Amino acid sequence: MREIPATWMRGGTSKCWVFERDVLTVPGRSVDEVLLRLYGSPDPRQVDGVGGATSTTSKAVVLARSDRPGIDVEYTFAQIGITDGRVDWTSNCGNCSAVVGPYALRRGWVVPTGEVTTVRINNTNTGQLIVVDVPTPSGQVTEQGTERIPGVAQPGLGVQLWFVDPAGRTTGALLPTGNAVDVVDGVRVTLLDAGAPVVLVPADEVGADGEVSPAALDSQEDLLRRLDRIRRIAAVRMGLAADPAEAARATPKIALVSAGRPASSDVTVRMLSMGRTHPALAITGSVALTAAAHTAGTVLSDFTAGEQEVLRLDTPAGVVTTRAGTRDGLLAIGVTRTTRRIGDAILVLPDDEPLEPPLTVLAAASAS
Amino acid sequence: MREIPATWMRGGTSKCWVFERDVLTVPGRSVDEVLLRLYGSPDPRQVDGVGGATSTTSKAVVLARSDRPGIDVEYTFAQIGITDGRVDWTSNCGNCSAVVGPYALRRGWVVPTGEVTTVRINNTNTGQLIVVDVPTPSGQVTEQGTERIPGVAQPGLGVQLWFVDPAGRTTGALLPTGNAVDVVDGVRVTLLDAGAPVVLVPADEVGADGEVSPAALDSQEDLLRRLDRIRRIAAVRMGLAADPAEAARATPKIALVSAGRPASSDVTVRMLSMGRTHPALAITGSVALTAAAHTAGTVLSDFTAGEQEVLRLDTPAGVVTTRAGTRDGLLAIGVTRTTRRIGDAILVLPDDEPLEPPLTVLAAASAS
Repeated sequence: MREIPATWMRGGTSKCWVFERDVLTVPGRSVDEVLLRLYGSPDPRQVDGVGGATSTTSKAVVLARSDRPGIDVEYTFAQIGITDGRVDWTSNCGNCSAVVGPYALRRGWVVPTGEVTTVRINNTNTGQLIVVDVPTPSGQVTEQGTERIPGVAQPGLGVQLWFVDPAGRTTGALLPTGNAVDVVDGVRVTLLDAGAPVVLVPADEVGADGEVSPAALDSQEDLLRRLDRIRRIAAVRMGLAADPAEAARATPKIALVSAGRPASSDVTVRMLSMGRTHPALAITGSVALTAAAHTAGTVLSDFTAGEQEVLRLDTPAGVVTTRAGTRDGLLAIGVTRTTRRIGDAILVLPDDEPLEPPLTVLAAASAS
Repeated sequence: MREIPATWMRGGTSKCWVFERDVLTVPGRSVDEVLLRLYGSPDPRQVDGVGGATSTTSKAVVLARSDRPGIDVEYTFAQIGITDGRVDWTSNCGNCSAVVGPYALRRGWVVPTGEVTTVRINNTNTGQLIVVDVPTPSGQVTEQGTERIPGVAQPGLGVQLWFVDPAGRTTGALLPTGNAVDVVDGVRVTLLDAGAPVVLVPADEVGADGEVSPAALDSQEDLLRRLDRIRRIAAVRMGLAADPAEAARATPKIALVSAGRPASSDVTVRMLSMGRTHPALAITGSVALTAAAHTAGTVLSDFTAGEQEVLRLDTPAGVVTTRAGTRDGLLAIGVTRTTRRIGDAILVLPDDEPLEPPLTVLAAASAS
């Protein structure tokens, strides 16, 4: 038995366990094995670990203080598989990105200066610089806040995340195929890499209701299968996989897009994450949508005015607003998130356990 | 902001947060308010707290060392409401009961003696004595184990729980109406109080498939409504509520029962918890089922042999086995559970937050 320190934080609409990189080094076991065991995976209920049995609550933030100039924190995101026994390191999570600044300030990795302190983060999954403005009233580290975002009932500390020059961090180009629109599986889509690689599918191209609820979308198995096929073919076109079957589950992401409601939003979006409808919106996806709105000829061009500074995205949890601005003299896409520290923990990692019986138990459980 | 120590443990098929009673005393706030805020309730996702957004993962175990003779630990169970903003203290949870013995041993409240140490627990919700046998090899406290139970993929420390003389702890009688069978809403049912008050409904009496999967049962809204109506009328007959509308959500529990599969089980059971199908079986419910099997003329009499020592209950997660035995010279019903400490934590309780805006946010989220 081994004890591993970790901090549980809400970042935006996600719950994220924060680990300092060194604590995941366990003799004889890979980092993936350690994380899967701590989270109670594989198990659809993750009942024997810290995982929350949904994609937005089975996430890890791995941090180390940076010794590189201009970077305060090296940040690696991990999506912990619930039933597949795998850890996906191929993408970032924008919601969890929001916890890194407050964590670094509390930990003393960054010294607060003035009313707002900027924390500079390198996301190692995507090579993306994320600059985060964290409130530090009177130069003091603070954890409690009163800001609110859609999809979260309680207030939190509001932080402003800027994804600096986000284009092409994974594939090398904003438009990896060179086209603003591609036809994949007979459907007009935009394949774009900013914040994360995404596939934008106009809802009417696949006969879907753009304002469908997550539960209703999750019940449309034929549509979900078709979207996953489009996503996998797109992965190959974007240079992310050699073959559709090899496409990672988390990359690229895919979203249905349609017109917004004139009074309140510019674009309506329903994003899928790990094969299920996201209850709100992956924030890296909102970066991609903002970049798409600023790029001529994409499938978003029908809905948006182009160079608008503020973009309002209608999600199942409410309207998420993004901004286009400048940081370090480069185009930066800004999103506001709230965070809260839920608690500090010492997690128990059991000694190695025999692998064979759990499979038997699972089979018996599913058969009965 | 206030910090509250707690320990997260798996007990059987539940995840339970353990609090020592005194830590929940917070000036100006009720224990219910403290628990709801820590768990992130009300919110269907409990994303801002430690709740797991399901009935089996939104539970609290409140403990105090006992100064009464023959009792080691005073144990109070709380079911933390997810969306209704309420804490239900009306029933015990048998799965969470399994964590109390190992917690008391680790905490030094009970001194280990020999290969197995007995911990004597008073459940204050039901006035039930629970005697738990915990392995202490060579007289040492141990936390890791290799035992397995249906519904949990990983092994854990196996403990044997004995519910001593469990009849009538809540209502005063094993059969609160005096009858082994009652007719409620036109249906033959058994109303019984042992471990917890339960309503046993033969599946064929309501036209249900006794072996239905939890997902399929949860999708049958008419049936769920009918079962809840039966449950609420039964609550009045059992003296648990003055009026069906006032029946607690967690008490009595209700279960569909039907014949087992001859080779593997005696009874098939699908139990509801907080209006949804339990993924396995409430252990307090298994105590009630065992008592019903030992009582002549109940709706279980059709399926069971009566005085059998071992009863095999077919649940969605696999077969749960109970035993009838003797402790303190009284009839005791025994169940094996496994437990694991997931971690120790210091949870953050924010200062009071304004109440009005969350409701607005929730309304906006559900409307959009």
